[in-house]
Amino acid sequence: MYQWARELYPMCRSLTGEGTRQTLRFLQERLPGMRLVEVPSGTRAFDWEVPLEWNIRGAQIRDMSGRVLVDFADHNLHVMGYSEPICARVSREKLEHHLYSIKEQPDAIPYVTSFYERRWGFCVPHRLREALGPGPFDVWIDSTLAPGSLTYGELLLEGESSREVLLSTYVCHPSMANNELSGPVVTTALARWLMAQPRRRLSYRIVFVPETIGSIVYLSRHLEEMRRRTLAGFVLSCVGDERTYSYLPTRRGDTLTDRVARHVLKHHAGSFDAYSFLDRGSDERQYGAVGVDLPVALMMRSKFHTYPEYHTSLDDLSLITPRGLEGAYEAHRLALYVLEHNARWRTTTICEPQLGRRGLHPTLSTREGARRDVGVKGMRNLLAYADGRLDLVELAEAVGLAAWECVPLLKILEREGLVVRVEEGGARDELREALGE
Amino acid sequence: MYQWARELYPMCRSLTGEGTRQTLRFLQERLPGMRLVEVPSGTRAFDWEVPLEWNIRGAQIRDMSGRVLVDFADHNLHVMGYSEPICARVSREKLEHHLYSIKEQPDAIPYVTSFYERRWGFCVPHRLREALGPGPFDVWIDSTLAPGSLTYGELLLEGESSREVLLSTYVCHPSMANNELSGPVVTTALARWLMAQPRRRLSYRIVFVPETIGSIVYLSRHLEEMRRRTLAGFVLSCVGDERTYSYLPTRRGDTLTDRVARHVLKHHAGSFDAYSFLDRGSDERQYGAVGVDLPVALMMRSKFHTYPEYHTSLDDLSLITPRGLEGAYEAHRLALYVLEHNARWRTTTICEPQLGRRGLHPTLSTREGARRDVGVKGMRNLLAYADGRLDLVELAEAVGLAAWECVPLLKILEREGLVVRVEEGGARDELREALGE
Amino acid sequence: MYQWARELYPMCRSLTGEGTRQTLRFLQERLPGMRLVEVPSGTRAFDWEVPLEWNIRGAQIRDMSGRVLVDFADHNLHVMGYSEPICARVSREKLEHHLYSIKEQPDAIPYVTSFYERRWGFCVPHRLREALGPGPFDVWIDSTLAPGSLTYGELLLEGESSREVLLSTYVCHPSMANNELSGPVVTTALARWLMAQPRRRLSYRIVFVPETIGSIVYLSRHLEEMRRRTLAGFVLSCVGDERTYSYLPTRRGDTLTDRVARHVLKHHAGSFDAYSFLDRGSDERQYGAVGVDLPVALMMRSKFHTYPEYHTSLDDLSLITPRGLEGAYEAHRLALYVLEHNARWRTTTICEPQLGRRGLHPTLSTREGARRDVGVKGMRNLLAYADGRLDLVELAEAVGLAAWECVPLLKILEREGLVVRVEEGGARDELREALGE
Repeated sequence: MYQWARELYPMCRSLTGEGTRQTLRFLQERLPGMRLVEVPSGTRAFDWEVPLEWNIRGAQIRDMSGRVLVDFADHNLHVMGYSEPICARVSREKLEHHLYSIKEQPDAIPYVTSFYERRWGFCVPHRLREALGPGPFDVWIDSTLAPGSLTYGELLLEGESSREVLLSTYVCHPSMANNELSGPVVTTALARWLMAQPRRRLSYRIVFVPETIGSIVYLSRHLEEMRRRTLAGFVLSCVGDERTYSYLPTRRGDTLTDRVARHVLKHHAGSFDAYSFLDRGSDERQYGAVGVDLPVALMMRSKFHTYPEYHTSLDDLSLITPRGLEGAYEAHRLALYVLEHNARWRTTTICEPQLGRRGLHPTLSTREGARRDVGVKGMRNLLAYADGRLDLVELAEAVGLAAWECVPLLKILEREGLVVRVEEGGARDELREALGE
Repeated sequence: MYQWARELYPMCRSLTGEGTRQTLRFLQERLPGMRLVEVPSGTRAFDWEVPLEWNIRGAQIRDMSGRVLVDFADHNLHVMGYSEPICARVSREKLEHHLYSIKEQPDAIPYVTSFYERRWGFCVPHRLREALGPGPFDVWIDSTLAPGSLTYGELLLEGESSREVLLSTYVCHPSMANNELSGPVVTTALARWLMAQPRRRLSYRIVFVPETIGSIVYLSRHLEEMRRRTLAGFVLSCVGDERTYSYLPTRRGDTLTDRVARHVLKHHAGSFDAYSFLDRGSDERQYGAVGVDLPVALMMRSKFHTYPEYHTSLDDLSLITPRGLEGAYEAHRLALYVLEHNARWRTTTICEPQLGRRGLHPTLSTREGARRDVGVKGMRNLLAYADGRLDLVELAEAVGLAAWECVPLLKILEREGLVVRVEEGGARDELREALGE
Repeated sequence: MYQWARELYPMCRSLTGEGTRQTLRFLQERLPGMRLVEVPSGTRAFDWEVPLEWNIRGAQIRDMSGRVLVDFADHNLHVMGYSEPICARVSREKLEHHLYSIKEQPDAIPYVTSFYERRWGFCVPHRLREALGPGPFDVWIDSTLAPGSLTYGELLLEGESSREVLLSTYVCHPSMANNELSGPVVTTALARWLMAQPRRRLSYRIVFVPETIGSIVYLSRHLEEMRRRTLAGFVLSCVGDERTYSYLPTRRGDTLTDRVARHVLKHHAGSFDAYSFLDRGSDERQYGAVGVDLPVALMMRSKFHTYPEYHTSLDDLSLITPRGLEGAYEAHRLALYVLEHNARWRTTTICEPQLGRRGLHPTLSTREGARRDVGVKGMRNLLAYADGRLDLVELAEAVGLAAWECVPLLKILEREGLVVRVEEGGARDELREALGE
């Protein structure tokens, strides 16, 4: 995953344009079956409209001696996203209105965009801004804002059931690592894991979209089926560093997605920073909007807006690590595993079954005896709580184990004919629950 | 309000009689439209009966030298409420059985009544009691207990809806300030504010009654319509000092009244002393009784029974202050404002609307940008949570603002066509909620 | 109770056999009406089968000089429960495989059984084990494992209603006091108290069974009627020492049984150790099993598995005390009292009744007045909360009194015609609640 991120890092992504297409093609090579979709500029999507396509080839600020002071070639954050083209000689004073920097972080290039109003601008380290001479300066931005299209990637993995899990991530930020590249690479790794599974109970909808407008466009084309089919979902964002784990729940906060995610983070991460939907900031804003109401949440490492490097050139490849990516990957993989195995189980015997006869329990009763054996204790507790109403997560919480520790024990009990799945109720309830009903 | 309290202070109020009538007339002059109602002695009201009317002109204890030791003219608390007339020479020992004082508060005259059994008595500072000579004494109480009537005041303010809010306060305590006069004066000020409103969505029922028997008599005449119409209600008592804020909830504790009151006190007072219905003591006992079940609570300053001056002559005009009255007035005014504007809102767009286009959001995206602007953040959060189910208080709690901060933002969004009211559901639910169903 | 325990202590109880029968006959003499039931070996009961009957007459380990090293006559824990007969000369090494001791408790004889697989063994203090010579040894166990029957005791006490309370305890442990004998003797004392009541609203099902197999056999014969009739129930185990009180709830944890038991322990014991159904260990495992779902819990003193003497010869008559037994007896007696008097009450008046007229309230109103009188305060609060929906426990919790303090006050109010029972609703709701619905 880290290697992919390194290769994707230099590409200049935005809401639209070649950098984003190039990124999606790179992922497509690793995800056979993924479709790239082009949506023409001007297309309506609910309250929005697909903007013009933006492409940029270069940009510079030069002084009168021709010395290059700022060069897009050095860092693609140097140009404000969606800058219109310009080629002019401007005074220092005029230039000031088009410069963006962060006084408190004098070495950071800020990430600034103006997607929905025509502007041009340069983003620079504050230190450099102060070192600029009296001017005048030659500013030049070789960009185009023209009718074209917005591009997104879609990968559908069919399973035995039409109920599906949504994985959504975004591909619209230029060279930034935790808040952006970690998302697409972890999502790609998860998709490859899912494709490698011999059997999938659930279907999966995996989308790579430019943030906000991309998810809105995608929803405008698939809302009804997604509302009908979506059981749970995650937006993958900020999943690359090692500092912490964070959870941002659905608006309702009690859907199947939330129960699974909290259970996974509790057992996988131990502790995590719990946020509210008030702290939302990525495409969960659209998936969780009133009238859309998909049960989509985020399991993150360091949450957007909360770490100092956020939305600056300091959010680079040194911020994310293979271990950081791996931890987030594992959390999501476990969540998908739990969803795949989620069901309700019911015991088949009245009163406790005779486990000793089946070699599942020591026949010698000493004070320590059974209590030493975690497996025996787990099976006895699962039998005690498997009432056909609790689903896997509730059952695991009831007996104090991780869901993925319960699954193998439940399979032994199932093989012995001591528990059966209550698929029907399960399915209906899960769906009801997913819809927060 | 403080000036009104000063003028009302000397009048000798009781369950019945001229002092109470005089008080009600004083308020009537300030509340055009208020009716004074007379209910004859002996009238049945549920398990109760209107008592004889009590009036008193004077009372004294004199020693043999004719020196006046205790004089009703000095303080109307000197005579036990509903004392029967007496004119006799009594021994010190006999007198003892008719004297009331508080050892722990030697300078305080206690407030003592005997409404439902014939007695006579004098209330005196313990210090004075101990200074009384050996006697005998001439005691004289010029009072009358005779068929007459109980008097209450009623002001009905019609609004667009028949659903109404009850404001109830009592007018039966002699010269005491926090526990009594603060109630009628704050209620009067609120009524004047309501009358001054250009438009009222709700109706208001404002009653000034003698405590207990008065509210029972009033309920015996209006129970059915009150049960049908009452959305929320407050008893105004102990709303004059500056020491603290207190909340005494409805019996169920989760009605609309409770949600509104707690929200108001949290945002207006910050912290407050939370009591239970077990701590009830005024007319909420009747309004909240089983079979009456009106959602009536109290937002107080220092709660009755909890402050040392309670029910003594020390509860005088020095205990209440203009600022104390103002704070309680404001808490109730805000609660009425929230009730007036309470509704459920629902967004009209699917996914987030494009606020930038409407000038409701900065078009330049920098890291700080939108997050600095409270209004923008508030509107975005209101749009995210306005699902047509949350009412104003729930919506305000969800986004972490005071309801009165949300109303103007919701009006902007309504004007822009981004949210609509779900009056119907709202109304029904509110009513259901008010009835605790 | 302590005296009974002393007399029962020497008998050698097991799942089956004469020791258990002898114990049950001893209790039968004190419980006229109790039936002893014999269930033949081999009888199926759900997933189980009644084992062969085990009887033992003696057992010894002797050295070559004929000196007796271990003798069943000294302590019946010396022989592993259900040991098959043996008479042989064995080497020290061979013997080792049949010796059980606890290194950490060198003076304790452990309690070991092998009910469902044929074994033979001796249980000895670790100190003695180490002092055994090099051998060889003559081991001799004069036991029989032969078709016979399992014996249990059943006492049914009919009441006015067919809804019943289950009391279950076990009679299968050899000489141990807290974990076992405390249960049968406290249960017997409770049964005698119930038989002495002039009037019983509820019926009672009191069973003395060998643990696990006994309750399973009993359930296999009475499940349907028990599911239909059982309102609440308790397993009596570990109710003899003075160290603490413990509570082990039903699986659902919110049934009538749980509400009553927690209320009783809070007011009777003050504090108690709260466990979860995960900590279960006695016949609540069967009564609370999925598909059985009887609301059965345990109010214990020191819980099984939690005290060092558990399942060893140290759990002897010095561990339990008359005071310890008495405290547990009282907790259960109070729980039965609450269940007997449980109902829903509703006030008959609208608004508060006039208590003064009925001599239930002082007619003189002073600041202290009514608040001093607990009874008056209790009655006023009961009247305020008796809405026909709260049952006795809920009502008691609402007014902050113990249920048994409320009953006499409610009876006064009932006599005065101020409250009535809402039996119907009550009964249905209780039942629904008992079934956790």
